[in-house]
Amino acid sequence: MGNVEEARSPLILHNAFVVTMDPDSRVFRDGALVVVGDRIQALGPSAQILRDFSHLAAADSIVDLRSRFLLPGFVNTHVHTSQQLARGIADDVDLRTWLHERIWPYESHMTEEDSYLSTLLCGIELIHSGVTCFAEAGGQHVTGMARAVKELGLRACLTQSTMDTGDGLPENWSASSTDDCIQSQKELYKKHHNTADGRIRVWFGLRQIMNATDQLLLKTRDVAEELKTGIHMHVAEIPYENQLVMNTRKINHGTVTYLEKIGLLRSNLLAAHSVWINEEEIKFFSKAGVKVSHCPAAAMCMLGFAPVKEMLEAGICVSLGTDGAPSNNRMSIVDEMYLASLINKGREAYMNGQTNPTALPAVTILEMVTINGAKSVLWDNEIGSLEVGKKADMIVVNPFSWTMVPLHDRISSLVYCMRTENIDSVMCNGQWIMKDHKILNVNEEEVTSLAMQASDDLLRRAGIYLPKRMNYL
Amino acid sequence: MGNVEEARSPLILHNAFVVTMDPDSRVFRDGALVVVGDRIQALGPSAQILRDFSHLAAADSIVDLRSRFLLPGFVNTHVHTSQQLARGIADDVDLRTWLHERIWPYESHMTEEDSYLSTLLCGIELIHSGVTCFAEAGGQHVTGMARAVKELGLRACLTQSTMDTGDGLPENWSASSTDDCIQSQKELYKKHHNTADGRIRVWFGLRQIMNATDQLLLKTRDVAEELKTGIHMHVAEIPYENQLVMNTRKINHGTVTYLEKIGLLRSNLLAAHSVWINEEEIKFFSKAGVKVSHCPAAAMCMLGFAPVKEMLEAGICVSLGTDGAPSNNRMSIVDEMYLASLINKGREAYMNGQTNPTALPAVTILEMVTINGAKSVLWDNEIGSLEVGKKADMIVVNPFSWTMVPLHDRISSLVYCMRTENIDSVMCNGQWIMKDHKILNVNEEEVTSLAMQASDDLLRRAGIYLPKRMNYL
Repeated sequence: MGNVEEARSPLILHNAFVVTMDPDSRVFRDGALVVVGDRIQALGPSAQILRDFSHLAAADSIVDLRSRFLLPGFVNTHVHTSQQLARGIADDVDLRTWLHERIWPYESHMTEEDSYLSTLLCGIELIHSGVTCFAEAGGQHVTGMARAVKELGLRACLTQSTMDTGDGLPENWSASSTDDCIQSQKELYKKHHNTADGRIRVWFGLRQIMNATDQLLLKTRDVAEELKTGIHMHVAEIPYENQLVMNTRKINHGTVTYLEKIGLLRSNLLAAHSVWINEEEIKFFSKAGVKVSHCPAAAMCMLGFAPVKEMLEAGICVSLGTDGAPSNNRMSIVDEMYLASLINKGREAYMNGQTNPTALPAVTILEMVTINGAKSVLWDNEIGSLEVGKKADMIVVNPFSWTMVPLHDRISSLVYCMRTENIDSVMCNGQWIMKDHKILNVNEEEVTSLAMQASDDLLRRAGIYLPKRMNYL
Repeated sequence: MGNVEEARSPLILHNAFVVTMDPDSRVFRDGALVVVGDRIQALGPSAQILRDFSHLAAADSIVDLRSRFLLPGFVNTHVHTSQQLARGIADDVDLRTWLHERIWPYESHMTEEDSYLSTLLCGIELIHSGVTCFAEAGGQHVTGMARAVKELGLRACLTQSTMDTGDGLPENWSASSTDDCIQSQKELYKKHHNTADGRIRVWFGLRQIMNATDQLLLKTRDVAEELKTGIHMHVAEIPYENQLVMNTRKINHGTVTYLEKIGLLRSNLLAAHSVWINEEEIKFFSKAGVKVSHCPAAAMCMLGFAPVKEMLEAGICVSLGTDGAPSNNRMSIVDEMYLASLINKGREAYMNGQTNPTALPAVTILEMVTINGAKSVLWDNEIGSLEVGKKADMIVVNPFSWTMVPLHDRISSLVYCMRTENIDSVMCNGQWIMKDHKILNVNEEEVTSLAMQASDDLLRRAGIYLPKRMNYL
């Protein structure tokens, strides 16, 4: 990686409204930032940075951002990139239909090429939404994903969907033994961890407790510990899950209580959703340093209202995720910011009789998608804020349009007004991956066309047919 | 109006996926539509329409929509166009601060020019969001609004913010007598009703029950009846409102029960929000044919969860509104569609212990923003669906991008995937008002710049200062 630094002139971005998200919450009204190689070399008021660095930079490497906003790249901590081709296959259906008739047939018929195309298509949406790093929620073919992530230029923690038990699974899945699950993930780790200039890491996956034996849970815990990587697991998604865990595993509440009992709650666990958890379980999470990925849209549609305010107040690191396209449809972390605030303000109506418009204020939401996201993926030593020495993962936002003006409150405008179309440019690891709305490393139209074809073929193979909603002529 | 028809060649839009929203729920997979003057002259399969009409049209009036979607223009049934300049002045604050320290000072310092600019800016956002008709929720200077609506080319029901009582109102407002309120609205009606080629109608406003004497309620009812126009009122927004009505007006529940008692519930009443209403009150609405504007984002942030599913099941015409920019920030009916579905699926978690992903399905949401919207503004004889003889109010959606593909379910993709950036072109009253993302009748950049200046001046006059959220350097 070191040789990248020598090959390029420093890049100076100046005349920007820089929201650093650093520990001092610094905002430079007229700020500038210097990128050398893949890292931030300097940061400060434009005048000072230009004075100190402009003589070192080529003329076309000094970029006037014309008062646009500069922020750390967003981190999406729960996204099923392999499900992008399944967008629209399970809208407005009950959970049983969703899982057994749509998602499992879809996932079990995917090829590695499908995962590759699905991740490319999803990655395009992530980049347009200002995401520079994501945590894969657990998908089908990590090798296909890794190929896509490498090409897109994104940063990611990739995870295999891992299950060694469970009723109603499609035939070609039910065979996986515990050892197979662990072994295949070890191989993926060996093959892909720390590849693509260090942008790709491999995590261990646990689809959910109902698809994991105790052996799988414990081995996953130990191997992840040994390899110093993270574990990504869906936790306490629906009341039925907790009920089943209580009935079969002899405890007084749900999944979190059981994971505490067997010692799986550690600081390298990223617990997605965590909707149905009680006060005691919040304390377990807090004490163990477990990270939570809150996915507002999917929660509203399919799961319920997570106690996000309570978790944040207990000191838990809560970040934001989009979940997968069949659970949400918009893989936009920008929309999740807006939703996270609205939903958790509204949730108070049920808790306390009226909404609380002061709950989850804008700064909290911004932390969730930046520094909390980085902590959730165990990468906050290098990403999540704009600080000297960190990786150059950042986005340029143009707020001067009808979507955001008149900008009386610039910070809150990022949460409540900003839409994907306001995100002009995205840099990851010191490289622009989108510039002026154009994805640079892959051909957007080509990917769209290939993905549409592949997804039609996949649905046909999987035997998924959707009813017509209207009177088609 | 008739002479417009003669002046122009028929316009033929063909090769479109036409979602008519007509009573038969017809969708033409390869459909076409003919516009003559301000109306839809014909509608059907492309081959048939081209055969019957292409010889009548000039070559440049035959437009190939290349499989894009054609829909009726959306109707936003509750929007404060005068509050657009106040976006960002009241984020994350409690209701008291919101009203007394931000909104009332803002509104009471507006000039007619401010209302004009605010409506222009808001109108630009409405058009980009596919709205062709809106119901003003009640604002400051109807004459300023009317000027903006006329220029923008939109269709609107304009309403004055009307109050003849209430504690804590700014000084220059508290003087309005009941007669002044009625008289000024009669004058506005006379001056603006049915102007701008019939695109503008004037309604009567009641800000809310806490700001209306019985005299004002009854006179409004009678004068609106006499003039055959509608009444737009905020109804049952917060628990406090119902409590106050119970205490002061001697009834057993809230505002709706009182309005029923005095005979205000009629089919020309558009009741915004209607969050805190009980089963009996739902029956009152249903029986009287009252229309409800559900504003999901504002409800989540500030009010609570309206019983939308129950109202729809009771046969009430529920439509969607964005509310004003300080209550929501995104004046996007497209986002409200997405939210309305999510919120009402999620609300079931509190009603029944788990979310209901089948609640408010995509077709219901599409009805809410089209035909129900038209019914809510008492204009469904001319708008709200694509039907021969109706006004040519419609939008062109380009779904072939990363935001919406792979389009397995085209109808649901309009609700769950579509974003404002997918809306290419908008026609109102037979005239394009946005084409290929370009607003045609006003200069977007100029309006943005003037609006930013005017809103800064207005905040200064009103003495509104916002605390800084971060450490500005």
